[in-house]
Amino acid sequence: MSERQNAKQSIVETASKLFVTQGYHATGLSQIIKESECPKGSVYYYFPKGKEELAIASIECTKQVVLAKWNDCFNKYDNPAEAIAMFIKELAVDVAKNGYEGYVPFSFWIAAETSSVSDKLREASQSVFAAWQNVISSRLHMTGIGQAKSNELGTVIVSLLEGALLLAITNRDTTPLLSASKCVPYLITKCPSL
Amino acid sequence: MSERQNAKQSIVETASKLFVTQGYHATGLSQIIKESECPKGSVYYYFPKGKEELAIASIECTKQVVLAKWNDCFNKYDNPAEAIAMFIKELAVDVAKNGYEGYVPFSFWIAAETSSVSDKLREASQSVFAAWQNVISSRLHMTGIGQAKSNELGTVIVSLLEGALLLAITNRDTTPLLSASKCVPYLITKCPSL
Repeated sequence: MSERQNAKQSIVETASKLFVTQGYHATGLSQIIKESECPKGSVYYYFPKGKEELAIASIECTKQVVLAKWNDCFNKYDNPAEAIAMFIKELAVDVAKNGYEGYVPFSFWIAAETSSVSDKLREASQSVFAAWQNVISSRLHMTGIGQAKSNELGTVIVSLLEGALLLAITNRDTTPLLSASKCVPYLITKCPSL
Repeated sequence: MSERQNAKQSIVETASKLFVTQGYHATGLSQIIKESECPKGSVYYYFPKGKEELAIASIECTKQVVLAKWNDCFNKYDNPAEAIAMFIKELAVDVAKNGYEGYVPFSFWIAAETSSVSDKLREASQSVFAAWQNVISSRLHMTGIGQAKSNELGTVIVSLLEGALLLAITNRDTTPLLSASKCVPYLITKCPSL
């Protein structure tokens, strides 16, 4: 990776960390510049529109990292229901290993700070959920489940995962994620009305 | 209600509104005092330990309001699976009616601002989830479902509801809540391994 790419990535990583731990509202550009140890000019060069543009880059980064994990998992298991259950189980292991910190979904600060967040940021978060739902839906559809049911299952599974993650972080306990993981195969095979 | 209770309640309601819209970190006592239109002294009188104590009171208030809604719903329908599905459907209607604002679960700012939030606040949030899970579990248990399965269903249903609410707020669309509502009866009757 070139030095340029390194600088840009370092800025995005620092910003993501600060947004997640302090919230969007409470994080200023000057702190991002200081903690990324990049020259002030490079922050304004890569992100001329400032904090909002940087937040959108952080959200996009999270989207790609998690999408890659989903694809890895689907490639590892023939049965997509098993792949989804394993994805959630592995998340539980990781979350506990990291002391229940740093796993706060980016969208929590979008949801938690509506008054200080723009429609652009909300739409960026929406596109992340849509991307995760799509990767799940398309794998389910490939096994012969109808498109409408596959889409709805994608939504339900992302909802369950995000909610279980929130409970796990709040309780400092992986039980909600493990219970969610156990449900997934039944949601896929036993919900005729979806 | 006495004038005293009114003042205390007005402080808690103002604080809740500000915490939810701005985040915990970004909300100061002085703003709470100003917007509640209560004398500065009464905030310090009712909440001598300051912002943290006020946040715990806000969380407790949310817990009781939502618990009362759960109990109303369970008393209205004989079948608890139907009651839970209706609770989520009614939430979807309310959220849309209120323009997807003001429905951010209190716990989002706990999760979103870990570095600025104490263990006491985290435990207060944990007790809210536990209370909601318990009201669901005990109603399911009363219909003959084993205690362990009832407990696990309580966790899964609260997870699904919280995650679907997050997606609905982000997408400004009730579909995730309506899909969650449709799954509930199948989760309860078709998940043998829970």
